[in-house]
Amino acid sequence: MRACVMRDHQLVIDDVPDPRPELGQVLVRNLACGICGSDLHFLRHADQMASMTDELLPSMGELGGIAAMQVDPSRDIIMGHEFCGEVLEMGPDTTGPPPGALVVSVPILLSAAGVHQLAYSNDYPGGFAQYMLLAAPLMLEVPNGLDARQAALTEPLAVGMHAVAKSGAAPSDGAVVVGCGPVGLAVIAGLRLAGVEMIVAADLSPMRRELALTMGATEAVDPRREPAVEAWRRLDGRRPLVAFEAVGVPGMLQGLIRDVPPGTRITVVGVCMEADQVVPFFAIAKELSIQFALAYSTDEFAGALRSIAEGDVDVAPMVTGAVALDGVAGAFDALARPDEQVKILVEPASA
Amino acid sequence: MRACVMRDHQLVIDDVPDPRPELGQVLVRNLACGICGSDLHFLRHADQMASMTDELLPSMGELGGIAAMQVDPSRDIIMGHEFCGEVLEMGPDTTGPPPGALVVSVPILLSAAGVHQLAYSNDYPGGFAQYMLLAAPLMLEVPNGLDARQAALTEPLAVGMHAVAKSGAAPSDGAVVVGCGPVGLAVIAGLRLAGVEMIVAADLSPMRRELALTMGATEAVDPRREPAVEAWRRLDGRRPLVAFEAVGVPGMLQGLIRDVPPGTRITVVGVCMEADQVVPFFAIAKELSIQFALAYSTDEFAGALRSIAEGDVDVAPMVTGAVALDGVAGAFDALARPDEQVKILVEPASA
Repeated sequence: MRACVMRDHQLVIDDVPDPRPELGQVLVRNLACGICGSDLHFLRHADQMASMTDELLPSMGELGGIAAMQVDPSRDIIMGHEFCGEVLEMGPDTTGPPPGALVVSVPILLSAAGVHQLAYSNDYPGGFAQYMLLAAPLMLEVPNGLDARQAALTEPLAVGMHAVAKSGAAPSDGAVVVGCGPVGLAVIAGLRLAGVEMIVAADLSPMRRELALTMGATEAVDPRREPAVEAWRRLDGRRPLVAFEAVGVPGMLQGLIRDVPPGTRITVVGVCMEADQVVPFFAIAKELSIQFALAYSTDEFAGALRSIAEGDVDVAPMVTGAVALDGVAGAFDALARPDEQVKILVEPASA
Repeated sequence: MRACVMRDHQLVIDDVPDPRPELGQVLVRNLACGICGSDLHFLRHADQMASMTDELLPSMGELGGIAAMQVDPSRDIIMGHEFCGEVLEMGPDTTGPPPGALVVSVPILLSAAGVHQLAYSNDYPGGFAQYMLLAAPLMLEVPNGLDARQAALTEPLAVGMHAVAKSGAAPSDGAVVVGCGPVGLAVIAGLRLAGVEMIVAADLSPMRRELALTMGATEAVDPRREPAVEAWRRLDGRRPLVAFEAVGVPGMLQGLIRDVPPGTRITVVGVCMEADQVVPFFAIAKELSIQFALAYSTDEFAGALRSIAEGDVDVAPMVTGAVALDGVAGAFDALARPDEQVKILVEPASA
């Protein structure tokens, strides 16, 4: 099959062997697969991520998910973990939706050898290929005739919904979301789904601020003109504040620590890969709490799919572009320029 | 009266005017007042602390406590906020315990002009002086014939109990306390009071490790030989972990972030005044939460006094020395050497 392969820190198009489903696995044709910020990070900093993961392992205990992230960046990797596919064929003694059904899944594959993290694996392809294997027990059929483009947004929405759940945000709170990339926009969607009415979004990009409003933010500010926390004070500083850091670059967390009022819970959902500096005195004087959030549970993933399919949230505006497999490398470049693109879908079945 | 005055970043003994109680105030004779790590910090870094407090103010809202910390380090300051005194005289139209009664108080003074933070004030003396003023409504009479030395430990114990409450520690949890200075020891005492049975303490100093065991730690480790989190794993890694950072120097927080298992709540109670570096990726991959803790409520302060007076906890072993006013400067020096002293009480009434 054709695939966009990460090889020697580059994305190249190549022919690779078709995957064959084993017991409990399902072969699907990829219809749409979002490019995630993690993919951009991984392409640039795979070696550093692999060594950081090695350093993490001793403290991770039984958590197989991370153990499965032991991937060798010097060998081929096919990324893509925000996928929606069409069922082609079941593995032996495996049951599931009929051929032609649209399905999504958390990016975990089960095999006789164990648990594999799809998209960051040397052994199994992710969504940037014509075909991939899914685990029948983890797969969800897409309901309500939802199209593949929208269903592919299940994964990023689940990330936002999970961060909101971790934050403990209540409907009467005021929320501040710093950063309106895909993660920040998903947090805004998650806040709306949780009934939070007052949401201040902040981003340097006018296009992303506009999208934040479309996704349900009450107000979107340029932090160079008005810091997000000041906008919360102006709008209704009596509402308890919940703050989200969804940028993931050094300095953003300390900016929130400096600005938020006493007792605020800050939820960090932007993955900052570099070392970051904080001033603990500020956090102590205000008795802040900082909750770090990653990924989602399988229940949250299913809830995200249901929310999209029921029309409780419209995530379609997040998609700013679509490419075929040979457009992936260019899409990665475009995503590095935040005023051009937010979420680009890869459509491996298109020409 | 005689007082140990902080003047030009030095501690000097001088005669200062006797305080006179106004409406709602009580004049007390200081019997015992602990020297706190904050006092050492303040003596060395008062200018930096003042400028950091200035930077904090815009985000602090109505919190008068910190606003009241606006103190001018270039003018005289009489520190000492862990005090127990003997009632001498009530202000006009003020009622309270009779003369001779022992009392403690949160270090807040009320006056017609507003709220003052005792011990970090240019206007009112703290406990390193013969006499001081307390607010009658905030003052608590020491029960059960408890002596002044033990009652003076109410304040540090309240700090530990508050941090434990903030941590959400449950009796079945396993606790790790990094740092066995007065704050770490108070956290250990607070954990015992909360019914936590498994407590691993870590400190470089053999004397402080010994004290940790006396205060109720299950085990005390030298982190150069065995990191605290490893000792928790060895003892009973199935217990959910609650971790306390009670050192307050750069690097300690990241050490815990690196070592603890997924989902751990870290409570930071050691006040690190310098900028500190963390690696957010580690905290995100493990979905950690970090709770910063400061001080205590008036209820927690009263609970600490009650716990000492009822004999639920014995905090007396924390006290490793006592000095008269002219010994305060030397005591500050001794406290900078952590294998000699932990908590030194100042006894202004002694010769």
